[in-house]
Amino acid sequence: MTLTILIAPSGFKESLSVNDVTCAIAEGVRRAMPDACILSAPMVDGGEGTTKALVEATGGRLHHATVTGPVGDPVPGFWGELGGAGPRTAVIEMAAAAGLSLVPRDRRDPTLTTSRGVGELILRALDEGAERILIGCGDSGINDGGAGMACALGARLFDKAGRELPEGGGALERLSQIDLAGLDPRLAHVRIDAAVNWHNMLLGPKGVARVFGPQKGATPDQVQLLDRAMETWAKQIWVATGKNVGSLPGAGASGGLGAGLVAFAGASLHPRFDIMREYLDFERLLDCADLVITAEGSLDGQSPYGKVPCEVGRIAAARGIPTIALAGTIGQGASETFQHGIAAFASIVKRPCTLEEAIRMGDKLLRRAAEDTMRMLQVGQRLALR
Amino acid sequence: MTLTILIAPSGFKESLSVNDVTCAIAEGVRRAMPDACILSAPMVDGGEGTTKALVEATGGRLHHATVTGPVGDPVPGFWGELGGAGPRTAVIEMAAAAGLSLVPRDRRDPTLTTSRGVGELILRALDEGAERILIGCGDSGINDGGAGMACALGARLFDKAGRELPEGGGALERLSQIDLAGLDPRLAHVRIDAAVNWHNMLLGPKGVARVFGPQKGATPDQVQLLDRAMETWAKQIWVATGKNVGSLPGAGASGGLGAGLVAFAGASLHPRFDIMREYLDFERLLDCADLVITAEGSLDGQSPYGKVPCEVGRIAAARGIPTIALAGTIGQGASETFQHGIAAFASIVKRPCTLEEAIRMGDKLLRRAAEDTMRMLQVGQRLALR
Repeated sequence: MTLTILIAPSGFKESLSVNDVTCAIAEGVRRAMPDACILSAPMVDGGEGTTKALVEATGGRLHHATVTGPVGDPVPGFWGELGGAGPRTAVIEMAAAAGLSLVPRDRRDPTLTTSRGVGELILRALDEGAERILIGCGDSGINDGGAGMACALGARLFDKAGRELPEGGGALERLSQIDLAGLDPRLAHVRIDAAVNWHNMLLGPKGVARVFGPQKGATPDQVQLLDRAMETWAKQIWVATGKNVGSLPGAGASGGLGAGLVAFAGASLHPRFDIMREYLDFERLLDCADLVITAEGSLDGQSPYGKVPCEVGRIAAARGIPTIALAGTIGQGASETFQHGIAAFASIVKRPCTLEEAIRMGDKLLRRAAEDTMRMLQVGQRLALR
Repeated sequence: MTLTILIAPSGFKESLSVNDVTCAIAEGVRRAMPDACILSAPMVDGGEGTTKALVEATGGRLHHATVTGPVGDPVPGFWGELGGAGPRTAVIEMAAAAGLSLVPRDRRDPTLTTSRGVGELILRALDEGAERILIGCGDSGINDGGAGMACALGARLFDKAGRELPEGGGALERLSQIDLAGLDPRLAHVRIDAAVNWHNMLLGPKGVARVFGPQKGATPDQVQLLDRAMETWAKQIWVATGKNVGSLPGAGASGGLGAGLVAFAGASLHPRFDIMREYLDFERLLDCADLVITAEGSLDGQSPYGKVPCEVGRIAAARGIPTIALAGTIGQGASETFQHGIAAFASIVKRPCTLEEAIRMGDKLLRRAAEDTMRMLQVGQRLALR
């Protein structure tokens, strides 16, 4: 009676990457149940780690490519080629070329940082024959609305005097004309999907500059400047392409990269877990599974609202497959998740300890928790067969 | 497919009595599995709480009786009458008449405190027609070798000058003769079992005065005095009864009460869990059970050496019944318990927290842990039936 178990966790914030989590759970499961068949669908969110996790999960390949970094210096970027049958698929996490962690602390000025490297990675993927490209948004260090990327793809941006604009979101305030004539023609023949936080808007009181500018290093004045620049950017995109990115959900993702992707790369934006599931072939994996194990740092009353465990649990439950959630903290309201696809949950914490200890020991605790959980399930199996 | 679940936990030290633990687990089980049939066998250790737990578990009756306390003042003592068929059975925890918690902190002098009240409780049980008496040892505040109890039962103790000795272990140093003529004749017709820690010796380097004297308030000099007194006591018991309590395992239990019980009440000493199981009819309960849930404050590498979870687990495993252990702390070496009857375990802790928090919330955490465990088992049952 071999069980097929689909491991579909999130990463644990500040502790374990989604790959770490997936591996730890798999190892724990194997200890208690060596003959289990283990499938994995790391529920990446588009941010740092997305490419490697998808490449590993699909048996694909990582490509390295030096590209323009967010402050203009070259950085060692990378993109992934997914494994498996079907169209040749590339995955690019924008943070690999324009992530906040690539911006030195003393140069965190989002009026100047650029998404150019993201466009360069797209070109590399096209050079390698990609027919489908998934772009993960998240952890960005820019606020240029994807202008740098657009320029890398062949667009040109001019001010009123006909001078080409320098890099960075701040300059877009002076944008007067967009020239699309030089756009790479291959973009018309490739499907590009972007995984975004659906709630990130480009403009308005919840616009990208106001919500995310400060954490990227913008002063209050710079936030104002970027906010005006994004207004101009949206207006000129509308003039040049007829596309209204100003009110598009997700257009504000990754410093407005979502807007640029839609306007210049012909991308479709998707709520991140929806599109990740598609690229992971999640439904097909689920068809093979008897049990799903998901995980997140915390499971609580907020989990039903867009967090990985319940997103995964609901889909599995609709197919009659039970989902177990492991979490560092089983918090207030966790039992609400029983209404949202979680059949049972367990904490990885095994004794009174500090949060720091739990984070430091996260990997070991998770492995143990997966093992202990499988042993508990085995007791349940015995009871059913008595 | 109704499950029959036997709840057989220990108490949680400094946190929850064995009854609290049993009730909390039962409540948690019922929340997840309302139709479960729940049996309980609280694994009392003979100390405080033993009587009430056994009375509740068997549907018996608690009797109140004012008796002589350890410092001579009357205390509100009690004893229990077990429910169920079979011989009329009384249960007496020695701590109800001579426990350390009955000795005011400023009167903690184990050369003076007496076990007289224990003898008085035995007489009450005899008055009520008890045919079988279980005496629980543990949590004592005396070191009189059971001399006070012996006198309550009718023995008389004299010094060389023929004067009757005063109460307390210290006086036994001067013991010169034991007169058994007045012993209550009913003692010859009743079965008395005592639940003791099998490792408690009356004499020698691990004798009761040296090991337990200090925690009962004895100074180093008093420890020496009590040690000599216990030597004399054993010698005179041997002269008067022919019984050698000096090397008898368990004779040192409860300040040497074990010795007195054997010498004057004709009691048999038993390792505490063995005799508790007999009085709880544990094997019969186990025959009805599909699953055992046990619990203790901590589960770790020490658990296989005489702790409740493994004692319970081994017996259940021998009958093919799985045992699940719940614990506040799943500590180092806990997985060794898999070789000693534990099929799976879970901590009651659900997130990083302090020991104080875990203790304060013990009841709630345990209820939740039992509920979460049952849900996990239910997932296992589903998997087996897929």
